[in-house]
Amino acid sequence: MQKEFVVIGLGRFGGSIVRELIDQGADVMAIDIAAERVDEFATIATQAVVADTTDEAVLKSLGIRNFEHVIVAIGDNIQSSILTTLMLKEIGVKKITVKAQNDYHEKVLRKIGADQVVHPERDMGIRIANNILSNNVLDYLELSDEHSIMEIKVNEKIAQKTLIDLDIRARYGINIVAIKRGNSINVSPPADENLQLNDVLIIIGADVDINRFEKKVLS
Amino acid sequence: MQKEFVVIGLGRFGGSIVRELIDQGADVMAIDIAAERVDEFATIATQAVVADTTDEAVLKSLGIRNFEHVIVAIGDNIQSSILTTLMLKEIGVKKITVKAQNDYHEKVLRKIGADQVVHPERDMGIRIANNILSNNVLDYLELSDEHSIMEIKVNEKIAQKTLIDLDIRARYGINIVAIKRGNSINVSPPADENLQLNDVLIIIGADVDINRFEKKVLS
Ligand SMILES: Nc1ncnc2c1ncn2[C@@H]1O[C@H](COP(=O)(O)OP(=O)(O)OP(=O)(O)O)[C@@H](O)[C@H]1O
Ligand SMILES: Nc1ncnc2c1ncn2[C@@H]1O[C@H](COP(=O)(O)OP(=O)(O)OP(=O)(O)O)[C@@H](O)[C@H]1O
Ligand SMILES: [Ca+2]
Ligand SMILES: [Ca+2]
Ligand SMILES: [Ca+2]
Ligand SMILES: [Ca+2]
Repeated sequence: MQKEFVVIGLGRFGGSIVRELIDQGADVMAIDIAAERVDEFATIATQAVVADTTDEAVLKSLGIRNFEHVIVAIGDNIQSSILTTLMLKEIGVKKITVKAQNDYHEKVLRKIGADQVVHPERDMGIRIANNILSNNVLDYLELSDEHSIMEIKVNEKIAQKTLIDLDIRARYGINIVAIKRGNSINVSPPADENLQLNDVLIIIGADVDINRFEKKVLS
Repeated sequence: MQKEFVVIGLGRFGGSIVRELIDQGADVMAIDIAAERVDEFATIATQAVVADTTDEAVLKSLGIRNFEHVIVAIGDNIQSSILTTLMLKEIGVKKITVKAQNDYHEKVLRKIGADQVVHPERDMGIRIANNILSNNVLDYLELSDEHSIMEIKVNEKIAQKTLIDLDIRARYGINIVAIKRGNSINVSPPADENLQLNDVLIIIGADVDINRFEKKVLS
C-alpha cells in the first residue's frame, strides 16, 4: 500500500520534506501559491500544483481529503497557515502536520485541530547548540530529559586504548552500544580491541554521566 | 573554563541557539541589526548588541575575535551572511559556523573559510519526513547511510510479549539497546519481561532490517 501525502508550501523546509518522502518511495502532491516554486518540483513530486490553499473550493477540487496526511509548511504568512489548516480540518483531512513560527501560532493551530505542530528552526537551533558545545559529541538522540544516546569521537587521549582500559561502564555508568569506524558499524564491540583515532563511540546513558565521561576523558 | 560564543542573527534559528547555549551555562553575545530582536534577548543573553556585522570596524570594536566560536544565523539576506563571514575570517575568528539557504550559498561560504555550514530547514525536513513515514518510529539517530538507532513504539500487536517471544536479534539482526517506559530508561532490558503498550524500544541496526521489523511486526 503506497503512502500518499500532500505538502503545502515549498520553501526550504517543505521542499526538503517533499524530496525525502519521494526518496523513500511515497507519493506526494506538492502545492505552492508561487508558480516558480511549483516548477522546481514538477519533475520531483508525483504531482506539482499551483494553488492558494486558503480556498476551500480549490482544496476540494484537488481531492485533498483522500490523502492520508497533509503537511502545511507555510511559514512567514501565519494567517495563510492558520486558514489553510482550518480548511483542511473542515473538509475532513484525517492527519495534519503544521509548521509553527512561534508559541502563539502553535496554540492557535492546536485549537483548530492540527495533529502535530513542528518548529524546525527552533529544534535545529537546539541540536546545533549542543553540537557546538562539544567538539567531540557529533550527534545525539534525546531519550528523555535526562538520558541520551551520543556519538562521541575518539581523540588522541583514548586512541589505542581498549574498552577494558577505559572501564567506562563501571566508572561512569554508561554503555557503549556500538563503534563506528569509517562506514562500518560494530554493534558488539570487542572489549579488548584498540580504539582508533576518529572511531565514533555510540554511548547510551544519563546526560550527566556521559558529560562527565566526555569532560574527564576527552577534553 | 567558561565557553564563550557569539550568535549573529536572532531569528528563530539563531534565537534558539542563544537560548540553548545559555541554558547549558555558556556565555553568549547576541547580535542583530534589528533593535526589536535584540531587546528580546537583553535579559537572556550575556550581552545583547544592536550592530551591522558586515561592518569590520564594528566587529573589531566589539572584540569579536576573542570569542571561541561565532555562529552566523542570518538567513534571507545572503549577501549579509557572506559579507559577515568574510569579515569574521578577516579579523581572525578561529571557528565560524554559518547557516546556508541553499547549495550555492554553502559553496561560497566554504570558499571564504566557514568551518561548518548548516541547513536547518532542510535537515529538519528530512527528520520530519522520516517521522511522518512511520507512525511507530518516534525519533532516530542516523549512524551511517545504512545504519540507525530508532525509537519504536510498542503497539497492541507486541504488547504483553517478551523479547524472547519476539526473538528480534535472530530474526531481524537488530539489537534492542534500551527500553523507555514513561520517564525511566532501562539500558539492560530483561529478556523475559512483558512489553507494555507505549513502551519505546531503542533499536540499533541496519535501516533495512529495522524497517523489516517495523513493517512485519508493527503494522
Ligand atoms: N496561501 C498559500 N497557498 C499555498 N502556498 C502558500 C500560501 N502562502 C504561502 N505559501 C507558500 O509557502 C511557502 C513557504 O513560505 P515561507 O515564507 O515560510 O518560505 P521560506 O521562508 O522560504 O520557508 P523556509 O524557512 O522553510 O525556507 C512559500 O513558497 C509560499 O509561496
Ligand atoms: N547585517 C546584519 N547584521 C546583523 N544582523 C543581521 C544582518 N542582516 C540580517 N540580520 C538579522 O538576521 C536575522 C535572521 O534573518 P532571517 O531573515 O533569516 O530571519 P528569519 O527568517 O526570521 O530566520 P529563521 O528562519 O531562523 O526564523 C534577522 O533578525 C535579521 O535582522
Ligand atoms: Ca524565512
Ligand atoms: Ca526559516
Ligand atoms: Ca537533555
Ligand atoms: Ca538513511
